[in-house]
Amino acid sequence: MGLFTKDIKTMDDLFVHQLQDIYYAEKQLVKALPKMADKATDPMLKQAFLTHLEETRVHVQRLEQVFEMHGAEVKAVDCPAIDGIIQEADETAGEVDDKAVLDAALINAAQAAEHYEIVRYGSLIAWARQLGRNDCAAVLQKTLDEEKTTDKKLTSLAEGRINMRAAS
Amino acid sequence: MGLFTKDIKTMDDLFVHQLQDIYYAEKQLVKALPKMADKATDPMLKQAFLTHLEETRVHVQRLEQVFEMHGAEVKAVDCPAIDGIIQEADETAGEVDDKAVLDAALINAAQAAEHYEIVRYGSLIAWARQLGRNDCAAVLQKTLDEEKTTDKKLTSLAEGRINMRAAS
Repeated sequence: MGLFTKDIKTMDDLFVHQLQDIYYAEKQLVKALPKMADKATDPMLKQAFLTHLEETRVHVQRLEQVFEMHGAEVKAVDCPAIDGIIQEADETAGEVDDKAVLDAALINAAQAAEHYEIVRYGSLIAWARQLGRNDCAAVLQKTLDEEKTTDKKLTSLAEGRINMRAAS
Repeated sequence: MGLFTKDIKTMDDLFVHQLQDIYYAEKQLVKALPKMADKATDPMLKQAFLTHLEETRVHVQRLEQVFEMHGAEVKAVDCPAIDGIIQEADETAGEVDDKAVLDAALINAAQAAEHYEIVRYGSLIAWARQLGRNDCAAVLQKTLDEEKTTDKKLTSLAEGRINMRAAS
């Protein structure tokens, strides 16, 4: 949660701080996803990463919209968790030799990022509703739905094709 | 995925490496959960952390069992993702003033750890089955089931009590 947690006194502060945390995370993923698409060897996986890159760009815009709706400054704070998840993805992508094994590892890394976001958006939506900000919750829900769909698509890709090829 | 990813050539290597990654993560959580229980102010949340601490100690033992079943050395590799998640939890726990807001933040941090584990165990189980290690998959499934139960319990605690109190 970065360096500013000492400023968190109310649920509203926590909500805004979490917005700043996931805003950072989404922006980092906009940088990471093209690299992951580039490394992926399965054409369907490559396409899934590129499709999710476009969605992620929209997620960034939606967060900017929520900051504005809530009257908060658009700002990012460091998020060591997503940095760690992306670092693991980078290291794996750079070092695994076998293409099918690399794809399996990339899917696993991407799903770690998806689940991180699913948790954070889930909390944000719950907190927004409790703060009486159903308008913010509705915008955030669109993104959560897309993160869950991406996670399922990755599971389906892993189970259907890539893992079987890698183990053969 | 630590420093040893250059050694990953096969699905078997990836499986063992992922075991080493989650072994590190579980051991870090054994250290982190008592601190989170200590910081939590809601008695049910405190108890949930302590219960999960006991489960997490068993998860460590189960991983040692799977290493042994698979004929691999019991070893941990650095896992920057869980380090980042725990760092966020520590910072939040140390800095938030309001008790109910602190509890909401602690739940959110714990759920990030749970989801990280849910992804990693999900992949491990899928990979174990593809490698013909249904015996390992069965042991890992027990842990995955417990992680999912803990995640649901945390959601229930958040929705039922703590968030409402914090927003009041």
